[in-house]
Amino acid sequence: MSDFDRSVHEALSRLNLVLPKPASPAGSYKPAVAAGDLLFLSAQVPYADGELVYRGRVGAELTLEQGYEAARTAALNALARIHQVLGSFEPLAEIVRVDGHVASAPGFFDQPRVVDGASDLFNAVLGPRSGHARTAFAPPALPMNVSVELAVIARILPA
Amino acid sequence: MSDFDRSVHEALSRLNLVLPKPASPAGSYKPAVAAGDLLFLSAQVPYADGELVYRGRVGAELTLEQGYEAARTAALNALARIHQVLGSFEPLAEIVRVDGHVASAPGFFDQPRVVDGASDLFNAVLGPRSGHARTAFAPPALPMNVSVELAVIARILPA
Amino acid sequence: MSDFDRSVHEALSRLNLVLPKPASPAGSYKPAVAAGDLLFLSAQVPYADGELVYRGRVGAELTLEQGYEAARTAALNALARIHQVLGSFEPLAEIVRVDGHVASAPGFFDQPRVVDGASDLFNAVLGPRSGHARTAFAPPALPMNVSVELAVIARILPA
Repeated sequence: MSDFDRSVHEALSRLNLVLPKPASPAGSYKPAVAAGDLLFLSAQVPYADGELVYRGRVGAELTLEQGYEAARTAALNALARIHQVLGSFEPLAEIVRVDGHVASAPGFFDQPRVVDGASDLFNAVLGPRSGHARTAFAPPALPMNVSVELAVIARILPA
Repeated sequence: MSDFDRSVHEALSRLNLVLPKPASPAGSYKPAVAAGDLLFLSAQVPYADGELVYRGRVGAELTLEQGYEAARTAALNALARIHQVLGSFEPLAEIVRVDGHVASAPGFFDQPRVVDGASDLFNAVLGPRSGHARTAFAPPALPMNVSVELAVIARILPA
Repeated sequence: MSDFDRSVHEALSRLNLVLPKPASPAGSYKPAVAAGDLLFLSAQVPYADGELVYRGRVGAELTLEQGYEAARTAALNALARIHQVLGSFEPLAEIVRVDGHVASAPGFFDQPRVVDGASDLFNAVLGPRSGHARTAFAPPALPMNVSVELAVIARILPA
């Protein structure tokens, strides 16, 4: 196990987090596709113990704090998927871009605070490899009534 | 014509599909831009016989089945654009990522079933080069009142 | 200063435009991340003189013309960010992809005309390096009640 792998697993332990078993794709597509040094992940949603959690809209069915936890949970699923696809964290060079879509009640405009749940987890666990440019969006709904959906692009080290 | 090109055209024939003439861009941009081995397509929408088809929201003006056909039609336009830009299908290494945006009525949450219309077509026609990570979204409306909009990234073989 | 840099600055002057000081990120992420020859920018919004401008929905609080100006202002911020990150415009090979999200009133479907505010500016200022495939979206709201949000991917020349 490389030093980076060890540091990621130790950071997860300190946060009392366990990598979940990644969910199956919700349709006829792949969980992730690599192209050159980029790895494109399929949508990551708040999934824990085999089911979707934190469903509904932030600002209505969910508080900002619950939205933050939803984004953090989706980001943990992204890490689990990256670990599964690459076999370890070592080949992960950097998270390149995170698009954070937050199902939002009318008049709720603090989506960046919600998506920080994902960014803060990446920062805490990946350290200098956390990287990531980011966008945030405020749709009134998301598929399967999830509250947060992340699209993640990562950079991987040459084999 | 390469073996792969032949297999794509045969698969389209079996499905009774003909590559449409790609629509002109809806604004001051390019239909596709290559960067290294990636090809970024502009938005693909359900366009057939020179006009937009399947307009409206899935779950209201359109059924799930019509939404599926809309996604399939948009994916056929993506194939037509790829063929036009590359001159043939041979340089297409893989579809890398598909973002599927589905105009949705309130309470309709089955967007992945709609976007499968695109994924299933890519899978049926491109076989092992179908690839693709995927996201799905549920906005209440899309530009020009289309029901489905796809953003597609493909990988191309080195020249 | 390279010929291309000079031409960009001259085009901005002719249009009476000044590169704004880029806004700080709205959360715990980076303003831009490079991966190989691609540069991924974080969300660009209409920001001028230190504050968000053109807030609200096109087709309700804002006219199409104001939406166009909002998109143009967000694109000017993208140029400022590119200039800041790269140190000059010279390493910018091409704008690769622009996703244009337009906060929209119900029944407003002319988002491509709004996002042309960004494309037209890139075309006027960057000339042959303007490139860009494009998408446009019509959400009912965006974070911080901005009217336009751009996600931009650029290609950079090898160092």
